[in-house]
Amino acid sequence: MSENARPLDLLNSAKGKNILVELKNGHSISGKLITFDVHINLTLENAEDKVNGEVVRKLGYLFIKGDTVVLVSPTL
Amino acid sequence: MSENARPLDLLNSAKGKNILVELKNGHSISGKLITFDVHINLTLENAEDKVNGEVVRKLGYLFIKGDTVVLVSPTL
Amino acid sequence: MSENARPLDLLNSAKGKNILVELKNGHSISGKLITFDVHINLTLENAEDKVNGEVVRKLGYLFIKGDTVVLVSPTL
Amino acid sequence: MSENARPLDLLNSAKGKNILVELKNGHSISGKLITFDVHINLTLENAEDKVNGEVVRKLGYLFIKGDTVVLVSPTL
Amino acid sequence: MSENARPLDLLNSAKGKNILVELKNGHSISGKLITFDVHINLTLENAEDKVNGEVVRKLGYLFIKGDTVVLVSPTL
Amino acid sequence: MSENARPLDLLNSAKGKNILVELKNGHSISGKLITFDVHINLTLENAEDKVNGEVVRKLGYLFIKGDTVVLVSPTL
Amino acid sequence: MSENARPLDLLNSAKGKNILVELKNGHSISGKLITFDVHINLTLENAEDKVNGEVVRKLGYLFIKGDTVVLVSPTL
Repeated sequence: MSENARPLDLLNSAKGKNILVELKNGHSISGKLITFDVHINLTLENAEDKVNGEVVRKLGYLFIKGDTVVLVSPTL
Repeated sequence: MSENARPLDLLNSAKGKNILVELKNGHSISGKLITFDVHINLTLENAEDKVNGEVVRKLGYLFIKGDTVVLVSPTL
Repeated sequence: MSENARPLDLLNSAKGKNILVELKNGHSISGKLITFDVHINLTLENAEDKVNGEVVRKLGYLFIKGDTVVLVSPTL
Repeated sequence: MSENARPLDLLNSAKGKNILVELKNGHSISGKLITFDVHINLTLENAEDKVNGEVVRKLGYLFIKGDTVVLVSPTL
Repeated sequence: MSENARPLDLLNSAKGKNILVELKNGHSISGKLITFDVHINLTLENAEDKVNGEVVRKLGYLFIKGDTVVLVSPTL
Repeated sequence: MSENARPLDLLNSAKGKNILVELKNGHSISGKLITFDVHINLTLENAEDKVNGEVVRKLGYLFIKGDTVVLVSPTL
Repeated sequence: MSENARPLDLLNSAKGKNILVELKNGHSISGKLITFDVHINLTLENAEDKVNGEVVRKLGYLFIKGDTVVLVSPTL
């Protein structure tokens, strides 16, 4: 990892891959990351709203507002 | 999806279509997206306030303040 | 609706008309919109504080701070 | 009301008069408005902290931080 | 009070005097105001943390972060 | 420690080492700090979500949004 | 205390000394102040997390995010 690595590099390398997003309201959203911006606004496709690992709702395309995001993890 | 795609592109392509908006206070609002700005302030027409998928209130034209928005999903 | 429509256009067209304002603290305020600014600070006249559609308090002229606003609906 | 009216005009015209201020913590403060600024920081004199319309505390001169303000109403 | 009075004037005139500070977490702090800045960051000396008017803790010198302040009252 | 030390120096010296991150939602995340920015956005590898010191979830690579961070401690 | 005293002067004079930091989540952290910045981001050494005056956790070196700070008191 170079000296100049920045946190957004991790999001950049996750484009087109599945990610898990945890929100301040306690929801976990999974889906394929389409893109993001510096506010950590995110767009996903094939998004699913999960509670305790179980899909409770399929959301398809989704815009997530950055100020509600707690963490983003590329799923393995 | 091009390298330069931005999250707001998804909202832009949803103009004139039905969307679902989830708010920080737990409400879900559906309606036709008229327009939005960079703060994610949104205006809808034929807006309805739904609880558990059931319409509890018809709101007609509606201005939603961006800082209360959690996520926006174009409805299928 | 033109390509350049902005969310504040809806508020602009509601000046002098009755609106419903929902606040983050759960209160609903109705009244005639006098004016607003880009922070969504609003001033109303003949403002009434309603709970479950019932007037619990008449407030007359009212200044509402924009950062407490969730949504604004022109009433039908 | 002119086309160029702004929300702060209402506060400006209330200087030297009694106002009611509702705060995000649920308190209502009444008092004579001395002055305010663009952050809606307010100073009052003869300020009183009221619960259910009853005075629970006399505060005299008072500085109220703007980011805690929900609404301001000139009292009739 | 001149036309150009600003809310911070009240804090300025309270320097070196006892003030009461109410915080968003519900605590009331009293003490002698040393100084403040535009963020309403405050420093006090002989600061005391009071609950229901009773001193629960002596804090001596104290820095209070402005974004936690609800109101400031010069004590009589 | 020089006169010009800044808080971010501590984070800088923790790059490549294990840290503990406490979040506003009460979760504690441990992992190896990859990098951070001025918003305290953080990226970790081998991240684990711990409750009462017990690993409840392995998250692998992780982006943590800075505005949810309470404190960061290099683990001993 | 000169006319030009600023709140951060108190923090500056506390560098290298023990301080008590109260956070918005209710925790109290004590430790030796290494340094701080204008956001009131703080770094401490020999930091301890205290509940009711009792040490519940030793944290060693610690970065505290400024927007979680309520108050800082140099301990006597």
